[in-house]
Amino acid sequence: MDQHLKEETLSTSVLYRGRIVNVRQDRVKLPSGKTAFREVVEHPGAVAILALDEEERVVLVRQYRQPAAAVLMEIPAGKLDPGEDPLHCAQRELAEETGLQGNSWRPLGWFYLSPGFSDEKIYLYLAQGLSKVPSPVPADEEETVEMVKLPLSEALDMVVRNELKDAKTVIALQLYRLSAP
Amino acid sequence: MDQHLKEETLSTSVLYRGRIVNVRQDRVKLPSGKTAFREVVEHPGAVAILALDEEERVVLVRQYRQPAAAVLMEIPAGKLDPGEDPLHCAQRELAEETGLQGNSWRPLGWFYLSPGFSDEKIYLYLAQGLSKVPSPVPADEEETVEMVKLPLSEALDMVVRNELKDAKTVIALQLYRLSAP
Repeated sequence: MDQHLKEETLSTSVLYRGRIVNVRQDRVKLPSGKTAFREVVEHPGAVAILALDEEERVVLVRQYRQPAAAVLMEIPAGKLDPGEDPLHCAQRELAEETGLQGNSWRPLGWFYLSPGFSDEKIYLYLAQGLSKVPSPVPADEEETVEMVKLPLSEALDMVVRNELKDAKTVIALQLYRLSAP
Repeated sequence: MDQHLKEETLSTSVLYRGRIVNVRQDRVKLPSGKTAFREVVEHPGAVAILALDEEERVVLVRQYRQPAAAVLMEIPAGKLDPGEDPLHCAQRELAEETGLQGNSWRPLGWFYLSPGFSDEKIYLYLAQGLSKVPSPVPADEEETVEMVKLPLSEALDMVVRNELKDAKTVIALQLYRLSAP
């Protein structure tokens, strides 16, 4: 049904191979018949976790982000290892970044972050029934994160006031709020 | 106050210069004193518009996205030209993609889409009081988009059912819903 919108890939070439991302350039045939180039950033995909404790406080992490040149407050998150199941990755990242585990996990959906130029998908999960992991998990040596717990209502107020600047964090908080029974 | 989290840039080098993005690698000093590399995708930034008509229908565009290899339904959006004011860009993109103009514009906030590796910021606007632009605006020759209008309530249901897959679209719809008086 979308034949009138579809672009056909004619050829592809990798222009950059990096530590996290690759960049490729595809030559495509447009619906008009003309050709164009599409630059695509390839990313392994990511997960993020909305972790809520018994008192409906949300677990956030504060972390310096070099691309933003600032400390941002975000829900725990991380990149998928090759072939890794997103739920397994979410459980691993929550333990690594916060020392917490959940006894109840539920998917909140997945999203493209910047589908105009990047294939990055993020899988969101809700984790509840939180407790400390029995034995500490080695954290990523190159990541310094600081855990903060905020009442969910306060975090949602911060979203509306545009004080939380991270897309996945905003989406997860709002999805929970709008889909809560 | 965030000195214990801050990373200091020691050196930087551009590894890739592309049509939309550049990739640079920064060598940073971590809070621990160790050094690490940070790969940063540089993007010019973007805008997106939640355009609502008199009957509270939201204007969406369907477009083939090469990174997703699929047609996605999104709010109108586009990249900033160098030095361009985000509101001006939003008005230009709405006209180019939908042939519409708004007589009332309000910022909904701005967000980082993937602050772990990308500096892309997106500025969101609410446009109301819609009418057709008096003289047609030349559209981007390389973009084929199809306009769809959906009742806001239906679009929000699609968010909760995870049928809308684009982060900016989800954020804008939810922000309007949660911040509406």
